[in-house]
Amino acid sequence: MDAISVIRAKRDGGRLSDGQIDWIIDAYTRGEVDPEQMSALAMAIFLNGMDRAEIARWTAAMIASGERMDFSSLPRPTADKHSTGGVGDKITLPLAPLVAACGAAVPQLSGRGLGHTGGTLDKLESIPGWRALLSNDEMMDVLREVGSVICAAGDGLAPADKKLYALRDVTGTVESIPLIASSIMSKKIAEGTGSLVLDVKVGSGAFMKDIDAARELATTMVGLGTDHGVRTVALLTDMSTPLGRTAGNALEVRESVEVLAGGGPADVVELTLALAREMLDAAGLPDADPAKALADGSAMDHWRRMIAAQGGDPDAELPVARERQVVPAAADGVLTRLDAYAVGVAAWRLGAGRARKEDPVQAGAGIEIHAKPGERVTAGQPLLTLHTDTPEKFDYALQALDGAVDYAPADTEFSASPIVLERIA
Amino acid sequence: MDAISVIRAKRDGGRLSDGQIDWIIDAYTRGEVDPEQMSALAMAIFLNGMDRAEIARWTAAMIASGERMDFSSLPRPTADKHSTGGVGDKITLPLAPLVAACGAAVPQLSGRGLGHTGGTLDKLESIPGWRALLSNDEMMDVLREVGSVICAAGDGLAPADKKLYALRDVTGTVESIPLIASSIMSKKIAEGTGSLVLDVKVGSGAFMKDIDAARELATTMVGLGTDHGVRTVALLTDMSTPLGRTAGNALEVRESVEVLAGGGPADVVELTLALAREMLDAAGLPDADPAKALADGSAMDHWRRMIAAQGGDPDAELPVARERQVVPAAADGVLTRLDAYAVGVAAWRLGAGRARKEDPVQAGAGIEIHAKPGERVTAGQPLLTLHTDTPEKFDYALQALDGAVDYAPADTEFSASPIVLERIA
Repeated sequence: MDAISVIRAKRDGGRLSDGQIDWIIDAYTRGEVDPEQMSALAMAIFLNGMDRAEIARWTAAMIASGERMDFSSLPRPTADKHSTGGVGDKITLPLAPLVAACGAAVPQLSGRGLGHTGGTLDKLESIPGWRALLSNDEMMDVLREVGSVICAAGDGLAPADKKLYALRDVTGTVESIPLIASSIMSKKIAEGTGSLVLDVKVGSGAFMKDIDAARELATTMVGLGTDHGVRTVALLTDMSTPLGRTAGNALEVRESVEVLAGGGPADVVELTLALAREMLDAAGLPDADPAKALADGSAMDHWRRMIAAQGGDPDAELPVARERQVVPAAADGVLTRLDAYAVGVAAWRLGAGRARKEDPVQAGAGIEIHAKPGERVTAGQPLLTLHTDTPEKFDYALQALDGAVDYAPADTEFSASPIVLERIA
Repeated sequence: MDAISVIRAKRDGGRLSDGQIDWIIDAYTRGEVDPEQMSALAMAIFLNGMDRAEIARWTAAMIASGERMDFSSLPRPTADKHSTGGVGDKITLPLAPLVAACGAAVPQLSGRGLGHTGGTLDKLESIPGWRALLSNDEMMDVLREVGSVICAAGDGLAPADKKLYALRDVTGTVESIPLIASSIMSKKIAEGTGSLVLDVKVGSGAFMKDIDAARELATTMVGLGTDHGVRTVALLTDMSTPLGRTAGNALEVRESVEVLAGGGPADVVELTLALAREMLDAAGLPDADPAKALADGSAMDHWRRMIAAQGGDPDAELPVARERQVVPAAADGVLTRLDAYAVGVAAWRLGAGRARKEDPVQAGAGIEIHAKPGERVTAGQPLLTLHTDTPEKFDYALQALDGAVDYAPADTEFSASPIVLERIA
């Protein structure tokens, strides 16, 4: 077996055999296939595709490149959620303790943000003392004691994916459904969850701008999960508008705590409950009532215990940015669009996100949203508040927001997009 | 400008702008664009192509990556030849001194062989004392004194191509007409010849198995040469049968000397004269008579002076392989096929070629051909003689020849393919 023959097979429009896939993933992980060979293959896959059986084998080979976790010793069924990433997407924060409060175990391995979408770990790290890095034993202890844990994925899970993802990032081979689906699912399957709910975002603030592509990605991932014995469901959800009323690390933690306290923005509550119901269903707990767990404080109780178990102080003051600037509404009327991508880029420029993996983020930076599509505004009223420790970035952030808002006359009938667009199982 | 945006443009089926091409070739040559990025781009070019203007700019950028030679101080017009490579293709050896004898200057920068096709420098290095590596000054001296020189291309010519070629070789991105054409032509244009004749081989022993692809490659290269002010003509020539009656380094030198002495196989003489006439025409010397220069010994005289000027002894005994094995004809009748690729692979296995750039070659190894298509044979008469210093390779070479020969009844009318198939100008 050699790399050139595998590359040529895919380049010429053929299928890769199981043996070719197993060999190249293993040899690449061990450094016997060079990065320039893998990137040529990734481009050939990008342009010529892989069929369902090839994607399944590719995923299995990436899982086999590392260790596989096992939660079968837990007394509860496991359920996990993965979001393809959006602006203001803090859902994991209220969702994990909520589902734990309803009886499932939630081993939520999360990542940091890159570019305009935030990362769950960055958000939680704005809580003083909270630690993202746990050993496998610590993770199991938190899961046993609290029922949910949110932490960084260890290096031992799907190392082939880790290496390939970094390569795709610099070679223009990211936006390929076979490669995205196998990347996400290899990590999630290696993680060992029994059930999985995928939140596949669609719209300007999402990776997938278009619902057809999002549906294809979701269908592919559901198929992969099912083939590997993981009960998998996907929701296609709207990401044309930011989720909730905040984008930024500490700002989103604060909003998540509001949701856990029984309040919070309607769209965040709606999506949190929809995903919780899917996770509980998939975990074999269809009678659980997540709305009740929000209302009776049990979700909040699980949140506090989860934060404390990872060294955080749930009562600590959250960091606040040093400077603020208000962006007023430009017209009277109904807000008809608040572009998620523009808000994500602006928050990133204010310091909430990072351009390179090694950059730090500002805990307090971000954007508060005072009006969302469908709401009436008066010219001059506060529309957004920008937060940053680096006020010299205000103008740069404002440039990103140029053209991001549309208004219609105040008597226009306008209803915002629903949050959940489709369910794929 | 960044590599990812250039890769994405070609990946998504777009054209690369002049600025993108100039930037990426320069940045890649300087090491600012990583090999894994260039290989992803090469695969995108392989699969999505480049139009004529893109290929022209790509070629120009590769020329601009290094030095450009200048022969304008020579009193004679310059003419060069490039062959895309075949089995038994020793034509450069008699051709360069022949064309010099007719009044043109022939600066023939050549390469070594890789795989089943031989390399001109490997062949000449079987002459005791002969040196392939000349400084630019030495090269000019030989050109001035003799009129022709055959030597290794310096590292200063089109370094971008040198780097890209090595990358393509390991990433399955060799067989792309835009990349092949720009690779060949960037070196030939940087070399500074005023006119160029391309020998584009077609058939089993050639890079291009198919005449349509060969025609497209030839047309692309003729266009590139013309656009850069080099008078360029291409001949498509047959490579389904080995050229002449030898394949192997010293064996081919011996045959070349026979041609220069006025003898030699008819096909080698025919192609040498056809290419010489094209070179002399393109160099503005249409009245020169290469057949006369072969007959009157002036071509041989130039050969002896050229070899001597590069340290070789034209009268030295050529190396002979230690062992021989005769392959007899398997049937009575007319030989209708002697497969060039099979003979090339067998000669390579006997030691005439190399598998990796750093391998040595055997000067004496190769194959003598006692009968060619169109000739009558009797079962048991010698058909081929295999030569090697490593007789343990005989069986391995014989395997390559399995199925390489066809016979028809002795009374069959059979005429072999013409050598020159088409002319493209």
